[in-house]
Amino acid sequence: MTASSESFRIERDTFGELRVPSDKYYGAQTVRSTMNFKIGGATERMPIQVIKAFGILKKAAAEVNKDYGLDPKIADAIIKAADEVAAGKLDDHFPLVVWQTGSGTQTNMNVNEVISNRAIEILGGKLGSKDPVHPNDHVNKSQSSNDTFPTAMHIAAAAEVHQVLLPGLQTLHDALAAKAEQFRDIIKIGRTHTQDAVPLSLGQEFGGYVQQVKYSIERVKASMPHVYELAAGGTAVGTGLNTRIGFAEKVADKVAALTGLPFITAANKFEALAAHDALVELSGSLNTVAVSMMKIANDIRFLGSGPRSGLGELILPENEPGSSIMPGKVNPTQCEAMTMVAAQVMGNHVAVTVGGSNGHFELNVFKPMIIKNVLNSARLLGDASVSFTNNCVVGIEVNTERINKLMNESLMLVTALNPHIGYDKAATIAKTAHKEGLTLKATAVKLGYLTEEQFEQWVRPQDMLGPK
Amino acid sequence: MTASSESFRIERDTFGELRVPSDKYYGAQTVRSTMNFKIGGATERMPIQVIKAFGILKKAAAEVNKDYGLDPKIADAIIKAADEVAAGKLDDHFPLVVWQTGSGTQTNMNVNEVISNRAIEILGGKLGSKDPVHPNDHVNKSQSSNDTFPTAMHIAAAAEVHQVLLPGLQTLHDALAAKAEQFRDIIKIGRTHTQDAVPLSLGQEFGGYVQQVKYSIERVKASMPHVYELAAGGTAVGTGLNTRIGFAEKVADKVAALTGLPFITAANKFEALAAHDALVELSGSLNTVAVSMMKIANDIRFLGSGPRSGLGELILPENEPGSSIMPGKVNPTQCEAMTMVAAQVMGNHVAVTVGGSNGHFELNVFKPMIIKNVLNSARLLGDASVSFTNNCVVGIEVNTERINKLMNESLMLVTALNPHIGYDKAATIAKTAHKEGLTLKATAVKLGYLTEEQFEQWVRPQDMLGPK
Amino acid sequence: MTASSESFRIERDTFGELRVPSDKYYGAQTVRSTMNFKIGGATERMPIQVIKAFGILKKAAAEVNKDYGLDPKIADAIIKAADEVAAGKLDDHFPLVVWQTGSGTQTNMNVNEVISNRAIEILGGKLGSKDPVHPNDHVNKSQSSNDTFPTAMHIAAAAEVHQVLLPGLQTLHDALAAKAEQFRDIIKIGRTHTQDAVPLSLGQEFGGYVQQVKYSIERVKASMPHVYELAAGGTAVGTGLNTRIGFAEKVADKVAALTGLPFITAANKFEALAAHDALVELSGSLNTVAVSMMKIANDIRFLGSGPRSGLGELILPENEPGSSIMPGKVNPTQCEAMTMVAAQVMGNHVAVTVGGSNGHFELNVFKPMIIKNVLNSARLLGDASVSFTNNCVVGIEVNTERINKLMNESLMLVTALNPHIGYDKAATIAKTAHKEGLTLKATAVKLGYLTEEQFEQWVRPQDMLGPK
Amino acid sequence: MTASSESFRIERDTFGELRVPSDKYYGAQTVRSTMNFKIGGATERMPIQVIKAFGILKKAAAEVNKDYGLDPKIADAIIKAADEVAAGKLDDHFPLVVWQTGSGTQTNMNVNEVISNRAIEILGGKLGSKDPVHPNDHVNKSQSSNDTFPTAMHIAAAAEVHQVLLPGLQTLHDALAAKAEQFRDIIKIGRTHTQDAVPLSLGQEFGGYVQQVKYSIERVKASMPHVYELAAGGTAVGTGLNTRIGFAEKVADKVAALTGLPFITAANKFEALAAHDALVELSGSLNTVAVSMMKIANDIRFLGSGPRSGLGELILPENEPGSSIMPGKVNPTQCEAMTMVAAQVMGNHVAVTVGGSNGHFELNVFKPMIIKNVLNSARLLGDASVSFTNNCVVGIEVNTERINKLMNESLMLVTALNPHIGYDKAATIAKTAHKEGLTLKATAVKLGYLTEEQFEQWVRPQDMLGPK
Repeated sequence: MTASSESFRIERDTFGELRVPSDKYYGAQTVRSTMNFKIGGATERMPIQVIKAFGILKKAAAEVNKDYGLDPKIADAIIKAADEVAAGKLDDHFPLVVWQTGSGTQTNMNVNEVISNRAIEILGGKLGSKDPVHPNDHVNKSQSSNDTFPTAMHIAAAAEVHQVLLPGLQTLHDALAAKAEQFRDIIKIGRTHTQDAVPLSLGQEFGGYVQQVKYSIERVKASMPHVYELAAGGTAVGTGLNTRIGFAEKVADKVAALTGLPFITAANKFEALAAHDALVELSGSLNTVAVSMMKIANDIRFLGSGPRSGLGELILPENEPGSSIMPGKVNPTQCEAMTMVAAQVMGNHVAVTVGGSNGHFELNVFKPMIIKNVLNSARLLGDASVSFTNNCVVGIEVNTERINKLMNESLMLVTALNPHIGYDKAATIAKTAHKEGLTLKATAVKLGYLTEEQFEQWVRPQDMLGPK
Repeated sequence: MTASSESFRIERDTFGELRVPSDKYYGAQTVRSTMNFKIGGATERMPIQVIKAFGILKKAAAEVNKDYGLDPKIADAIIKAADEVAAGKLDDHFPLVVWQTGSGTQTNMNVNEVISNRAIEILGGKLGSKDPVHPNDHVNKSQSSNDTFPTAMHIAAAAEVHQVLLPGLQTLHDALAAKAEQFRDIIKIGRTHTQDAVPLSLGQEFGGYVQQVKYSIERVKASMPHVYELAAGGTAVGTGLNTRIGFAEKVADKVAALTGLPFITAANKFEALAAHDALVELSGSLNTVAVSMMKIANDIRFLGSGPRSGLGELILPENEPGSSIMPGKVNPTQCEAMTMVAAQVMGNHVAVTVGGSNGHFELNVFKPMIIKNVLNSARLLGDASVSFTNNCVVGIEVNTERINKLMNESLMLVTALNPHIGYDKAATIAKTAHKEGLTLKATAVKLGYLTEEQFEQWVRPQDMLGPK
Repeated sequence: MTASSESFRIERDTFGELRVPSDKYYGAQTVRSTMNFKIGGATERMPIQVIKAFGILKKAAAEVNKDYGLDPKIADAIIKAADEVAAGKLDDHFPLVVWQTGSGTQTNMNVNEVISNRAIEILGGKLGSKDPVHPNDHVNKSQSSNDTFPTAMHIAAAAEVHQVLLPGLQTLHDALAAKAEQFRDIIKIGRTHTQDAVPLSLGQEFGGYVQQVKYSIERVKASMPHVYELAAGGTAVGTGLNTRIGFAEKVADKVAALTGLPFITAANKFEALAAHDALVELSGSLNTVAVSMMKIANDIRFLGSGPRSGLGELILPENEPGSSIMPGKVNPTQCEAMTMVAAQVMGNHVAVTVGGSNGHFELNVFKPMIIKNVLNSARLLGDASVSFTNNCVVGIEVNTERINKLMNESLMLVTALNPHIGYDKAATIAKTAHKEGLTLKATAVKLGYLTEEQFEQWVRPQDMLGPK
Repeated sequence: MTASSESFRIERDTFGELRVPSDKYYGAQTVRSTMNFKIGGATERMPIQVIKAFGILKKAAAEVNKDYGLDPKIADAIIKAADEVAAGKLDDHFPLVVWQTGSGTQTNMNVNEVISNRAIEILGGKLGSKDPVHPNDHVNKSQSSNDTFPTAMHIAAAAEVHQVLLPGLQTLHDALAAKAEQFRDIIKIGRTHTQDAVPLSLGQEFGGYVQQVKYSIERVKASMPHVYELAAGGTAVGTGLNTRIGFAEKVADKVAALTGLPFITAANKFEALAAHDALVELSGSLNTVAVSMMKIANDIRFLGSGPRSGLGELILPENEPGSSIMPGKVNPTQCEAMTMVAAQVMGNHVAVTVGGSNGHFELNVFKPMIIKNVLNSARLLGDASVSFTNNCVVGIEVNTERINKLMNESLMLVTALNPHIGYDKAATIAKTAHKEGLTLKATAVKLGYLTEEQFEQWVRPQDMLGPK
């Protein structure tokens, strides 16, 4: 986390001088943060998606500032440097961890320092001189951490949703839909309360999963409108002090153009700084997606359990050796990865909820924690959906023999008799058959409730898959 | 929980005979449930809103069944009895607790028994005889617990949202909006990181709260479309076995007509029985509302803290003696009720999430727990919003003297100098003024960075409330 | 919630006059609270266990105050009235809901008013006169809501743990232990990743559950020491202002004597008022118990799934009709109640966590919400344990035929060959047997890895249940 | 995540051949996992603490296996290689992510492969040949992933608790205790409900924090006994199949010796594989610690709020520039990092809870997710405690002037009059003084309730700090 190189330059912030590694673009405030926040280590770094989002934002701001009179030479150098940040070319220059100031100020300054020094370099100046490109006065012009950090949060979240989560969910949806179609005519026993119930088709069962994923996609999309609202232009407390009229709208337009996403300026900048309800809302949708994923992955692993002592209706792809001690064991490992992801997302959501609820006055100071969790949830769900699809869903096969055997043995086919002989007599048939180990038909006839012909006419699984 | 009266009649279910209190309409299965599930006591009863929703559903189903050929005499008696359930006239006949079977089957049967016995009574029959109105064959006709209980869940949730939550939030919104307007021109110090920051108007600050509540309303409404989808017609596993084509749609239409809410039949009945993603989604919105409420109530109690040793900008209404030992103490008790409600809703949401994620195969069996929590959250947030509005928000007054004093003392007014003298010099002024206990103006002039006239021209709080 | 009777007396608090129902012992402050906090309705009343705990505390305080000089006539009347509160004789006089002031002041005053009026009545005075027994000066003497409410919280929580939770867990433990012993010699297939694995005995499997419940009991007990610490004597902010030296210790002693539980005075009263870490800790243990219960109940329902299409190793008791549409269906309803309870407890724990984390300065003001959830969790877990034991565990039977069949078919018995022929060859046997649908023995011999005799010697399920 | 080098060797597992980077010790199964689980990227790698714990375990197992007859040459090579893993020398050879199989089998095999190949190298063999050191037959001898992974979980968790968390909490405790002592005689206003209350000393206030941290340490320690129980020796399902009698105990002894921590063999191996209640319990304690930290950090930031418009009683260290736009701003950034950590730990706890509750039959398959979260919580709390201590607590100074001013102005000093003039008259004094803006003394005398001398005798803050 701390400076690793051996040669240094001296930079200073309002607190004094600090040694900065010569080969790094960041400056004194970044170094100071690495000294003050030794929490969690390298795996806890500010998500790189936030850094890239800052690159986009700083570029947009510089373009608008140029329109408003910022020296074009300075603006263009900032834009070029910001482009490099957005492109991920300067990732090594962002060493700060999430567990810093709750406004993300230090990361904003890290970005300002890197862009200013890189811009200075482009213009032939001396790193750390703040001349001719000052990190605050030029790179951060018309901005505050308090509006830029939430703006970067929203850009990063929206990008992750669009680049990773939604494509992942769509991939899963399509694979499940293809399976539902493929399994359309396979009639199987239903299970309610984990107990035998009336039949349905395997296609219908998978159709339920398809619907869950379809609605997952809808839910995530429905959560985006407030995420598209950008705080930029609110500066320190939401008033827009030290900005120009129109700055907020223009920056949002630029960001929208750069990302291809429908960003707009936030309707109320005070809300946009002081609360992160929009991300709590998005996290709530991710939580609902996780709930759906847990259900689907659980079902598939149980339906594929066996090979000989489980339900055994599905045959899941064998992807790797399943056990270090039990030779030949194959496990539903993709289901396991997915359900672990689901549990993590549920936990992340609580962290986001707690953070979101604890804002005070003009600023919520749980910002880095909130965005870390939202990005983590979106990424994990998106990646896991693709992995689950490619390594499990598309390869699912059916044990037809097993499915037929279970379906035909089921006592719950008796339900089809309700409209003919009433619930109470039907119950007597089922209970007697279960007790005596007989078939439903034999029992029904023996009890004298109906004839063999009537049974065969009335109890037909293929006629039990829908209303009449 | 158990039968309280002293005379009994004998009823029987498929498990045998049971003594049922003579003055109750419920029957054997209800009594059996009270014997098997002694969990939690009277406060844990199935929410009465679910019972009322069942009344609406059973009425709608009877009307449709009548269209499809159910004996009109029987149908009409069911309809009349169901109306009484929906109207809350038979509340004493529903003794079951939430902690029963996870499908809510016992409550569905409780409803079937009460309606059948009441209908039998209407038709002059004998309670417990199942004749001429059978609880399963007639009251539950074309239905299963597996589709009726989730239908009742959705009806109850939608009703609570529309009757309690949304009106409550609207009440709060309007009161906050009125205050924001009233406070429009009161300029005050902003606070970020709980520390002094640049000024804003009190109207702007309250405007942030208004936006949060406005979006709360939007969020809840945006969660409703899937809640309007009704499972009715799916029967046991989602196939609609033992129903008629069109039954599902007609029932949804009837329920919509009876409630005035846009219910439709669920697009996929398998999903509607096996998962409760729609209610997890709604709970997620309630969680976001809770997050907003926690922020607003926290701010208001801190802004109103004092009377002499707190921030003291707001004067909250005095509603009751605040302390049993400290005479004259007045506390922000409405804020406290609201923040406790918020914490409860966050907890309820986790319960709903866990329950929602643990469905298996064709049925989620956490239904009663899920709806209990969703209804509790909606009710608490709605009621607390009204209480908070009437007993706190509308009576908030401003301590103008205090607000002015704090604002004028603030060192952060120095921010207005950034565009004129740059961030670094402005920082030196603020730090020096703080260290030496001087005013900004005196310090600025002393340091030679600007003249007194320039200071007065550039640092004007009323000019710091927006972009220029 | 509001006054229900038709005749009233006039009482007054420091805010003015109020009409109090003539037949109620409570006074003005209670009525005022019912007017100011119309949140949630009757099901949201302050848990009666808190009221009873207050009865114990007020009695103890009066006894100590008598020792310190309180007029014995007044003290004795308070003691008698407090006894009635503790005994549940005055439950109708406590109408307040949980969602009131976060210190529980109004409930403390409700108790003070009821006891003072009842004591006045005992002494022949006039209700509402505060003479000769004043609610603040006498009943609340040497007390504040800020120390009495947390004291009542701890008394109530400890009582519920000892009276409901621990006996319930012990009941479950003993029943599971008896089953583990009964099932000691039944060898069955193990399942890991829900897939077939090497064998164990059913007694071993149940032994895992026994251990979980045994540790559940240990965990709860290990959480109690800090709960036994009572805040009484801290008064308003923890200093003990207006108490006498020794008051705190004496009250704790009295409460210990009255309850038979090892209460002591809190080591640090400031911590005891400002934080509720002790109850968060207890709630954490309840959460862990819930996790254990979810596991056990899930296992039992899956092992008992069927009757024909599930795992079918266990036969669970049939307690009630399982379906309103599927005749003869029997469901694992006790498992469902238990898993719903588990989900609720997990949610309650988050509510407690959020409330516990949000204390400010000298007082946490989420007290009523915290104790409501802790009591709810303890009660539900305790009751559900008993219900699950009596209506499920004790009646579990074994489908021996099924268990033997599955065990003998298992491919994972191949694991016993590892020490003899190595993992890789053993894997080849299992995979080949699975692919060709053969037995392990036939495959092993066919592949030439060992002889039939060696197989029979090495692969013996009864020898696979432990180390050698 | 995938192989990065350009030359490869061919290895094979039971699924076929794979190309393995020549410069890596891992083998086919590791490579296969990187192909099958592209979830989350590099930041989601299995925590290195788990890998190091595996190094310790594999060394211990090899030593015991050597005692039981494993070729000493092979055993010694394994021991040497395992030592290197434990020492962190081979960290680059563990590329797998958390989101893999839920048993951690692939990480166990990653370890087996690395140790086997490194041991082969030590013995002069050929990487990937499995000769003379086979990853399963030798390195994993008498082990299964199902017992080794939970063993590594417990070793890693205990190590993190002892190396990071407990020292961090102790550091914080000692610093707060020193401050409590330093502030012993500073009398200040108390605040309850965020409102002015009776006085206490600043030392008493900090003493509450000290108690919270002291109990935090106790809570964590109290959670460790079950964590010290190791699953090793349970092998695949808990029976200990393919181990020798005494193996489990000996391995636990070795691990205890290697770590200096009191590890023992688990009392019940079935519980130890199928459930992770011990880690849920530990996570519950971490959650309680987080609750304490949130309270303490919140208090300190509010008490330090200002510099001119907040409570301003404490002066927190200035560590860095606080704002990119507001010059001279200083923020309580250490409090913010700590409260963000607290929120994260609360979220992690829910993830652990959900994972812990979803085990099935003989194995819980949320293992990697559970340990990731437990380790993250322990590390973050430990690191943040140190950072908060060093960069905030030790540097806290007191604004005595402000503290005195607030204390002397307080109306709540009136509470000291209760024993002399009764609650009702005292309330009248306070309310009148507040209304008329007078001092308590002037009001009391004016109302004729007491004399000036009596007031001065009875209302003395220094006499209000304890019982009398």
